[in-house]
Amino acid sequence: MDLPKIARPDESFEERARARQRELTKPSGSLGKLEAIAVRLAGIQRKDAPVAFGRRIVVFAADHGVTEEGVSPYPSAVTRQMLRNFAAGGAAINALARAAQAEVRVVDVGVGRGTKNFARQPAMTADESSRAIERGREQARAAMEEGIALVGPGEMGIGNTTSASAIASALTGAPPDEVTGPGTGLDEEGRRHKVDVIRRALDLHLPSADDPLHVLRSVGGLEIASILGFCLEAAAARLAILVDGFIVTAAFALAAKLSPEVRDYAFFSHLSTEPGHRVLLRALGGKPLLDLDLRLGEGTGAALAMPILGSAVAAHNEMATFESAGVSKAPSA
Amino acid sequence: MDLPKIARPDESFEERARARQRELTKPSGSLGKLEAIAVRLAGIQRKDAPVAFGRRIVVFAADHGVTEEGVSPYPSAVTRQMLRNFAAGGAAINALARAAQAEVRVVDVGVGRGTKNFARQPAMTADESSRAIERGREQARAAMEEGIALVGPGEMGIGNTTSASAIASALTGAPPDEVTGPGTGLDEEGRRHKVDVIRRALDLHLPSADDPLHVLRSVGGLEIASILGFCLEAAAARLAILVDGFIVTAAFALAAKLSPEVRDYAFFSHLSTEPGHRVLLRALGGKPLLDLDLRLGEGTGAALAMPILGSAVAAHNEMATFESAGVSKAPSA
Repeated sequence: MDLPKIARPDESFEERARARQRELTKPSGSLGKLEAIAVRLAGIQRKDAPVAFGRRIVVFAADHGVTEEGVSPYPSAVTRQMLRNFAAGGAAINALARAAQAEVRVVDVGVGRGTKNFARQPAMTADESSRAIERGREQARAAMEEGIALVGPGEMGIGNTTSASAIASALTGAPPDEVTGPGTGLDEEGRRHKVDVIRRALDLHLPSADDPLHVLRSVGGLEIASILGFCLEAAAARLAILVDGFIVTAAFALAAKLSPEVRDYAFFSHLSTEPGHRVLLRALGGKPLLDLDLRLGEGTGAALAMPILGSAVAAHNEMATFESAGVSKAPSA
Repeated sequence: MDLPKIARPDESFEERARARQRELTKPSGSLGKLEAIAVRLAGIQRKDAPVAFGRRIVVFAADHGVTEEGVSPYPSAVTRQMLRNFAAGGAAINALARAAQAEVRVVDVGVGRGTKNFARQPAMTADESSRAIERGREQARAAMEEGIALVGPGEMGIGNTTSASAIASALTGAPPDEVTGPGTGLDEEGRRHKVDVIRRALDLHLPSADDPLHVLRSVGGLEIASILGFCLEAAAARLAILVDGFIVTAAFALAAKLSPEVRDYAFFSHLSTEPGHRVLLRALGGKPLLDLDLRLGEGTGAALAMPILGSAVAAHNEMATFESAGVSKAPSA
């Protein structure tokens, strides 16, 4: 597969942004992570005045054959029901995206024709995987062409925490028990069964962290494949990527194995209560912006974090400098 | 002093809000802290559909006599200079409030006629303290009358981290060294000097946690007195209070000593890098919504957290229910 070519954020724009931050009417460094966000966005966008509007959540949806193993308390039909809910504007991501002034796009990449049951056979063929990745790349190109600056990939797919846990274990070497949580609401007995299903699948496929596309085909999901492609292409298109929770981070971790440069374009939006999320973030060296005990997915964490990027940009672009405002600078500053 | 009477949030509204959360199209509890926020706002406002608009930051500004002791690298004149910067819309709080769709009000409660140097004498008289508290109460009443739902008290006053550290030590018993940080940018030598100033002041006034108004008069600031009054009156008026960083939390902690019920109206917006903030939050049992390494004050953390309350309300009010959307509920839910 030919991968999109990802450049580094532009260092000269970052340096100028850092210099501007030191001139703004506040103690140097006092806006903490907001300063780093503004600097990084300047480098990503190659703009002295970075932008944080043009916000879009792209929810990729697909079914998961592994639900046959009883790994979710929700029936698989809920994936399709939730697509209707997204279309009607009634899901959490619709409400949170509206609050964040972000659009929502929903892309069906395999509802009804989902993955095979990866407890018994590979989740997808090489061809299915490539097509799903390309669907994601198309969405990133469309976002770029339509003037979007911040993208938040989201997901819907009953069964996909099982897939994400298997990926997390394959990529980090953490045992399945450490990276497997209750998902949408399993009790402890259900969770232990889910761990067993994952352990069997890993024994069957023997996926290796050195071959992320084999991990994807073995235990991934079609929406996870699309998110992988979406992230790589979004970075190549110089879009800022708001990485959502556990499932999106699993897809992002696969993308980062293929092209480590994608990390420079990522803002980790929140820390999920799913235990595998923390493990993946640690492996990626990612520090989440929010910690609100979310475990919903859909891109909800990404939507919640978008206003923080907006605030970082607002401070960077709109604040007066010590000189323009006639404010004395600390002698030590 | 007669204190405003603060009622408890309404439990029947909270109970109905909790029931609604269980019916929304998401796994129960999966929106984490957003669910608790929506429930609490329903109880505070006595509304089945709570609101998060009508947002106002009220920045109280005052000078601090203790700056004579060399406790800040910035000259005291910066307080007045920053008032002009607020008026012109060029400060961090202006930019962040705009991004959060919040208004900013600036209230001069002692610029030019600030506190006495509390290293040598009480910061304020009982009369000065009462007047400053009343100025804060007026602002809360005005906010209520003008249809504001979320208020974020902010502050400006060169020298006021020294005051907040002294208050934190007096209220919690933590030694001054543990609750004193660099403020707007002291080096370690400067910070140790600041600790000495605070230690001397506490030895001079012997403020006791059992007499919060004596703590305030001894080592407080006029803006801190106003924020204390503002918080008590805002809670009495059933407004949600976004508690900002170290200085506002010190004022809030004094208010909570006078009327513990004020805590039910507080949303702790962020964790400052000033070490005393963590100590005060622990004493209050407050969990901050954000941790972005801020140490600016002005109400910036409160402004940043307002959209989170907005998102919580959006999800609560706008999401479809399992029944209305035709989505299957998990058998265990």
